[in-house]
Amino acid sequence: MRVVLFDTFGTVVDWRSGLLETAHRLERHRGVHADWAALADAWRAEYMPSMDRVRRGELPWTALDDLHRASLPGVVDKLAIEGLTDEDLAELTLGWHHLPPWPDAVAGLESLKRRYIIGPLSNGDVAMLTDIAKHAGLPWDLVIGADLFRHYKPDPEIYLGACSLLRRAPEEVLLCAAHNEDLVHARAAGLRTAFVRRPTEHGPDQRIDLHPEQDWDLTADSITELAALLGC
Amino acid sequence: MRVVLFDTFGTVVDWRSGLLETAHRLERHRGVHADWAALADAWRAEYMPSMDRVRRGELPWTALDDLHRASLPGVVDKLAIEGLTDEDLAELTLGWHHLPPWPDAVAGLESLKRRYIIGPLSNGDVAMLTDIAKHAGLPWDLVIGADLFRHYKPDPEIYLGACSLLRRAPEEVLLCAAHNEDLVHARAAGLRTAFVRRPTEHGPDQRIDLHPEQDWDLTADSITELAALLGC
Repeated sequence: MRVVLFDTFGTVVDWRSGLLETAHRLERHRGVHADWAALADAWRAEYMPSMDRVRRGELPWTALDDLHRASLPGVVDKLAIEGLTDEDLAELTLGWHHLPPWPDAVAGLESLKRRYIIGPLSNGDVAMLTDIAKHAGLPWDLVIGADLFRHYKPDPEIYLGACSLLRRAPEEVLLCAAHNEDLVHARAAGLRTAFVRRPTEHGPDQRIDLHPEQDWDLTADSITELAALLGC
Repeated sequence: MRVVLFDTFGTVVDWRSGLLETAHRLERHRGVHADWAALADAWRAEYMPSMDRVRRGELPWTALDDLHRASLPGVVDKLAIEGLTDEDLAELTLGWHHLPPWPDAVAGLESLKRRYIIGPLSNGDVAMLTDIAKHAGLPWDLVIGADLFRHYKPDPEIYLGACSLLRRAPEEVLLCAAHNEDLVHARAAGLRTAFVRRPTEHGPDQRIDLHPEQDWDLTADSITELAALLGC
C-alpha cells in the first residue's frame, strides 16, 4: 500500500485562526488586549530561525513545542504586550495543539485513508501532532514528527527517515504540502510531491505560496480534490 | 489526555489463527502439506530467542519482520516441511502483517479512542504495525514500534521511550497486555498495567497467561470490558 504524508501546519490545520481563537479567549478571561494577529504572525516568523538554530547545531535537539515556548517572550516584548503571566504564555503555547482543520481536511483524509497509508510529516513533535489530530479529528494511520529523527525539515534526514520508517522507497511516498519550499526538498529526496493551495494560511494579505512554483506531481485546491485526483 | 497502549501480537490480534489462514491458503495454491499449527507454534517459539540475540548485542538492530524471515528456514527444516520456495517463505512472513483482530478489539479500541490516546506498544516495527492496523481496522491514534527505540520489550528503554515520545509521565500511561511478563516490566518502569485474558492465543491447549499473576491495576476478559472499566 502506498503512502501519502502531509505537512501539517498550514496544509492540514489553520494555525493562524487557531492561535487567534486561543488569544481571544485569553483576552476575554484575563482582560489583556493586544494586536493578536500581529502576535500570531510575529510568532510564526520565529519558526524558521528557531529551527535553523537547531539545524545548524547552535542548539541541541529541541522539540517544536519548546521552541514555541522559548520564542514567545521575545515576541511579546517586541510587540509591547503587557500583563501576560507565565501561565498565559503556557496557555498560548498550548494553543498550537488546538488548531482547527481546514474545512476539507477531515473529509479528504478519510477518503484517502481507505486506499493509502496517511500520516503527518511535520516539524511538530509526535506528542503535539497527536494532540492536534485528536482535537481536529484527523484520522491518521500513524504520526511522524521531527523528533523521531531529531532533524527538522528541510533536512533530507526527515524525508528519508520517514520512508525508512515505513520501509518504502521514496518514490512510493507522496508528500502533500502548501509550501513550495517543502516540496523542493521532498523532491530532492526522491519523494513524489503534491501542492495544495492554502491562500489564506497567512491571513487575507498572503503573498507567498499562492501558486505551485514547479511542476509538482499533483496540484489541488483542497485535500478532497487531492483524494479525487488519487482515485479515492 | 491520558494514554492507553497495547501489546499487539496476542493481545489485540490473533496471530496464530492469522498464520494458519495464510498457511492454508498457501497449501491450496501450492499443494504443500504440513502440520501448519506446529509451524505457527515453532515459529512463534523463535520469537523470544531471536529478540534476545538483539537485546544481548549478538545481532545488530534487526526489525521483527526480518527476524521472522530469518528464523523461518530453521523451523521449516526442523519440521521437515518440503517444497517451500523462497517466495513461499516471503508469503508466510507477510502473513504476520495480515492478522485478524480478536472479536472485541476494534469495538473496544473505538470506545477507548473517544477519551484516550491509543496506540500499540509492540515489538513489531512501525511499518509492520501500520500494515496490521490497516488490515485489521485498528483505529490507532499513533503507532509505536520497537524500531523507534531500537530496543525490544522487555528492555526498559521501550516502555520509557514511549512515555517520552508522548511527553507523558509513566503513571499517565496504561499498558494493556495478555502477557504477565510484559506487565511486570511495564510496572517496573512506572506505567500502569491492565491484563486482558486471551486464553486461546496459543491454541486450545494454552497453559500460560491464563490468569493475572500480580495485582495488575485492571483485569478484563476483552478490550470492550477494559473500555467499560475505564469509563468509556
